Amino acid sequence: MRLRNKPWALDFINEHPEIIIPNPEEHLGKWNEIFGNDNPVHIEVGTGKGQFVTGMALQNPDINYIGIELYDSVIVSALEKVLEANSPSNLRLLKVNGADLAKYFEKNDVSRVYLNFSDPWPKARHEKRRLTSDGFLKLYESILIDNGEIHFKTDNRGLFEYSLVNMSHYGMLLKYVSLDLHANMPEGNIMTEYEEKFSQKGQPIYRLEAQFISK
Amino acid sequence: MRLRNKPWALDFINEHPEIIIPNPEEHLGKWNEIFGNDNPVHIEVGTGKGQFVTGMALQNPDINYIGIELYDSVIVSALEKVLEANSPSNLRLLKVNGADLAKYFEKNDVSRVYLNFSDPWPKARHEKRRLTSDGFLKLYESILIDNGEIHFKTDNRGLFEYSLVNMSHYGMLLKYVSLDLHANMPEGNIMTEYEEKFSQKGQPIYRLEAQFISK
Repeated sequence: MRLRNKPWALDFINEHPEIIIPNPEEHLGKWNEIFGNDNPVHIEVGTGKGQFVTGMALQNPDINYIGIELYDSVIVSALEKVLEANSPSNLRLLKVNGADLAKYFEKNDVSRVYLNFSDPWPKARHEKRRLTSDGFLKLYESILIDNGEIHFKTDNRGLFEYSLVNMSHYGMLLKYVSLDLHANMPEGNIMTEYEEKFSQKGQPIYRLEAQFISK
Repeated sequence: MRLRNKPWALDFINEHPEIIIPNPEEHLGKWNEIFGNDNPVHIEVGTGKGQFVTGMALQNPDINYIGIELYDSVIVSALEKVLEANSPSNLRLLKVNGADLAKYFEKNDVSRVYLNFSDPWPKARHEKRRLTSDGFLKLYESILIDNGEIHFKTDNRGLFEYSLVNMSHYGMLLKYVSLDLHANMPEGNIMTEYEEKFSQKGQPIYRLEAQFISK
């Protein structure tokens, strides 16, 4: 995502601690206190401008959603989306690095991980940065419930091919694969900003659901 | 594949027992006698007009190939291809039903199964006829070596999606996936007749390699 310098971003973020949780490490193991209920928590790693996670929160009030985004200049757009949606009580944002998830979540804190249009990092030497590489899968497994799931959408063929093979090697079960999501649009599909743009160009959107298997 | 009535087909087939093996059940467990060596045996289930299996046999003289095709009117085209290629000594054809493989092969007889552009059988009630359904996977596993592989190409998106998910549920390892084979054509790719036709239309060709895991 192209990053624009937004000098006002940090102030705006700090003005909304009810949405972008400050000191998230303090909530490890007790996210139910934030949401005031014991509903399942689904996180989106790399939430970007927030259209997906906001749409999901409005569509599914019995699920708690946390959108995770590192960049000030990006998460402010997500913050605006959340505010425009009247701050659904089942939705929060975290301004942290996805690689540090284990600082904020522990085993069983999360029921599902969403990855949408993640950076493909096509060069072999950048494999570890891909959000479906072994290090990240291990990280997700360490915070998910048993048999927790990853739901992943992308328009990037290389990243999707890599993810199918890598998840299989990791021992995950592929529960669902679509190689052209919009050819048979599933009911309730919430599009990301990227998804709208790419699908309008006629490019196929790939989607999978994969499950960790208890050992 | 459209079947044309070829009244001369059966005579032509019977004239070439050196290519289309008669009484294949007699060779169960001893295909090395047919080929005169202990090289690995790769079979193609649904060999059609034989371009793939003939090309593979010419390209890989240290592998023994068996193309399996049920229909007289189709296997005669494969027979013609084999004869045109001067009957490579590492290539045979079998005119049998793929569902009956266990009559002709036993455990460890086969090192690899190729499936190319298999009939998609898109209706749910025909699932069992798909060559990547559980019954067929079990059949292949029963004749393959430990950690034997299936290599599968198709232009049919639905069948490929189904196969990825079903192989994963079966417990197979996905070793390789391409969602547009011709965008990065692997060295040595032998095209089937269908593959030539479909790729010329710009449709993506899907390909996977999956491995059975010893229990």
